[in-house]
Amino acid sequence: MALPYTKRGVTHLPPPLVLVLLYFVLILIGAIALKVPFATAIPITWSEAIFTATSALTVTGLIVLDTSADFNLFGQIVIICLIQLGGLGLMTFAVLILSMLGLPVGFTQNLYLREDLNQTSASDLFSLTKMILRVVLLCEIVGAALLALVFIPEFGWREGIWQSFFHSISAFNNAGFSLFPDSLSHWVGNPVVNIIVPLLFIIGGLGFTVVSDIWRIHNWRQFSLHTKLMLVGTIVLLIWSTLTFAAMEWTNPATLGGLDWATKLWASWFQAASTRTAGFNTVDIGGMTDSTTLMFMLLMVIGAGSSSTGGGIKVTTFIVLVLATLAFFKRRPTVDIFGRRISADQVMKVLALVMVTLSLILTSLFAMLIFHEGAFLDLAFEAISAFGTVGLSRGVTDQFDPIGRIIMIFIMFIGRVGPLTIGFLLAAQKPKRISYPTGTIYLG
Amino acid sequence: MALPYTKRGVTHLPPPLVLVLLYFVLILIGAIALKVPFATAIPITWSEAIFTATSALTVTGLIVLDTSADFNLFGQIVIICLIQLGGLGLMTFAVLILSMLGLPVGFTQNLYLREDLNQTSASDLFSLTKMILRVVLLCEIVGAALLALVFIPEFGWREGIWQSFFHSISAFNNAGFSLFPDSLSHWVGNPVVNIIVPLLFIIGGLGFTVVSDIWRIHNWRQFSLHTKLMLVGTIVLLIWSTLTFAAMEWTNPATLGGLDWATKLWASWFQAASTRTAGFNTVDIGGMTDSTTLMFMLLMVIGAGSSSTGGGIKVTTFIVLVLATLAFFKRRPTVDIFGRRISADQVMKVLALVMVTLSLILTSLFAMLIFHEGAFLDLAFEAISAFGTVGLSRGVTDQFDPIGRIIMIFIMFIGRVGPLTIGFLLAAQKPKRISYPTGTIYLG
Ligand SMILES: [K+]
Ligand SMILES: [K+]
Repeated sequence: MALPYTKRGVTHLPPPLVLVLLYFVLILIGAIALKVPFATAIPITWSEAIFTATSALTVTGLIVLDTSADFNLFGQIVIICLIQLGGLGLMTFAVLILSMLGLPVGFTQNLYLREDLNQTSASDLFSLTKMILRVVLLCEIVGAALLALVFIPEFGWREGIWQSFFHSISAFNNAGFSLFPDSLSHWVGNPVVNIIVPLLFIIGGLGFTVVSDIWRIHNWRQFSLHTKLMLVGTIVLLIWSTLTFAAMEWTNPATLGGLDWATKLWASWFQAASTRTAGFNTVDIGGMTDSTTLMFMLLMVIGAGSSSTGGGIKVTTFIVLVLATLAFFKRRPTVDIFGRRISADQVMKVLALVMVTLSLILTSLFAMLIFHEGAFLDLAFEAISAFGTVGLSRGVTDQFDPIGRIIMIFIMFIGRVGPLTIGFLLAAQKPKRISYPTGTIYLG
Repeated sequence: MALPYTKRGVTHLPPPLVLVLLYFVLILIGAIALKVPFATAIPITWSEAIFTATSALTVTGLIVLDTSADFNLFGQIVIICLIQLGGLGLMTFAVLILSMLGLPVGFTQNLYLREDLNQTSASDLFSLTKMILRVVLLCEIVGAALLALVFIPEFGWREGIWQSFFHSISAFNNAGFSLFPDSLSHWVGNPVVNIIVPLLFIIGGLGFTVVSDIWRIHNWRQFSLHTKLMLVGTIVLLIWSTLTFAAMEWTNPATLGGLDWATKLWASWFQAASTRTAGFNTVDIGGMTDSTTLMFMLLMVIGAGSSSTGGGIKVTTFIVLVLATLAFFKRRPTVDIFGRRISADQVMKVLALVMVTLSLILTSLFAMLIFHEGAFLDLAFEAISAFGTVGLSRGVTDQFDPIGRIIMIFIMFIGRVGPLTIGFLLAAQKPKRISYPTGTIYLG
């Protein structure tokens, strides 16, 4: 470790607090920028400005205003900047800023760097950051160029190019913001949109440790355990959710029922892939059956990858949960996968993470139910969507009163900053001093 | 260990399967006994008979018939026998039968006996069983005698005595079956009913390791860790849930609103205590607010004690979850409480248990949503109530069609037998053979 944990440099603020303050300040700046008269086509309230800024910076995508009609170009630029900053930029910059401030960067090794990069200096961090930014820019530019093939013929040069860039950046950062009132429903059967947009948000959702592994190593055997788990987990989740969605909605007139079979398949693929964290939609989310809605809530809780633009408990956390449960039923005391052991310590972390997530979701939902009228399923869906920074809506978020909005702002903030803060805590574990004898408890 | 794990005696069936078969056979016998013409006042269908037998044997208490009006005395006797057998009897008898068959009784030590009783012979088991039966009988007779003070003046001698015994047995076994169509709502403000019935189901729900600890040892310091955790956890849960229920329902006209303040307090205490697993009610469960309903679903998942008449993931499992999460945030690598360590191994078990429970609840709910029409919250509540063998209902269970009933029968069966089976699995852990190097995964 280049900088020991105890060295604190210019500031004595703990890193999680720095992160929270950073987000807080950026939301305020964003809200002010959105509130200026030339940002919007109509006058907007402070609660609308703060809600939109929070939703953009936390890459959630829940909206209380129509992004295309209510915001002018300047407002849209502010939104897309907040998205870029909140998605990957802020994390990358935070790494740089914290290490420059002399703050502990031990967490960076654990969180962001591959396990074989044990020696990290400030210059290593800087080159890592450069590589991340290069990958991000490359993906977003290529994505925009390909989306332009659809958007320029439809909207003309000027409008089409702006649409392409906006949706490419929004997709790569898993933000779910769209310049169309019904998200991407107009392109429900368009092959280019159905391939490029998901590709962007899947890559962005893998997390940059995985992307850098794939970028530099082209050999499955040399991939880190984390990369292998993320790739296998993502593929399995994509196939499972696509097939389940198609099976459950195939004849539902409110969603897939009226489409031809090719469009049904495109829509199933897009919607299933988008739900874990991207938050775009090509079918009507409010029209889905209750069983699909339940499955979607599960997908939103699972989320995307660590150190990615996505939210949720993360795919690897979910895999460890499943593996630990299977190991228990196979009566194996340890969790082994791909020739590697997952330590009991990491299983403990997973447990803590899941418990905190469940508590936060339940508390949020509780607050929503007490302070806001609405159907239980709708409120549960919106709360989980906000917590997982997904942004899908059953159509109740835009009807929220100020209290409902404040709660949603809080949930989005917690949903994005909370897991990151836990990430910091994952870093260093103090050794315990007293050793007690083991006690027996009867469980289950 | 008196009998080594590998010695299997007369049968080669694994213990969990024996337990499942035992429950299955008893449900069939119970259903046949309820289907005979003189058991009921009106002809009933097979699905109604099987549903009632399952609900009684799994001590759930969900009903599709009116226990007082539709069943004759014989039918009610069959029901109370199934309750007694399913509540404590079957577990006690299973211990005896399995050990007599020469089946592994290693699990008995882990599950049922105090940690200081490491040497267990068949005669020890027999005397333990005798003690359990003595405590059960004592509680039920004393309970019935005290309830008779209320029921005999109201219903006369013959009817009053039967009511007293039925409700005492139903309460001690956390069955929730009542001979009144609106459960115990008539006695919402009656101090005797509000003290005796909860006392019975709380003692029954503590689990007999705890009861035997209290019975034999009268010194807090000498209590086992399990007993201490159960007592503290139960008291904290009782206080918290009573206060929360009172706060949220105080002015709700459908529940507490119309009552005087003393009755409000009695009702809050009774309903909050009853919800974790007993399943009696003195207020209208369907009239509660959505937020209270959510809290109740949480309480039903937590449940009562291990090796008790209650269901759910169990109070100790919940405490370990909370302690493990707190330990993580305090950056302690181990979980310590009351001067004892909870091993990483046990935390792993808790994780597996919670994951299985969540999977089963989600799968059940999924099946309900696909095959049965109904409001999401109502179906979720009934599914969790069945899984936790609670028996509270928002009034939709008695409207279920045969498919809905079959799913509910399945959930009740899984809810009662599943955790017990997991209990068996908790017993012996095979040592693993290959040791892999530890891999790093990024979580959260
Ligand atoms: K999103
Ligand atoms: K019950």
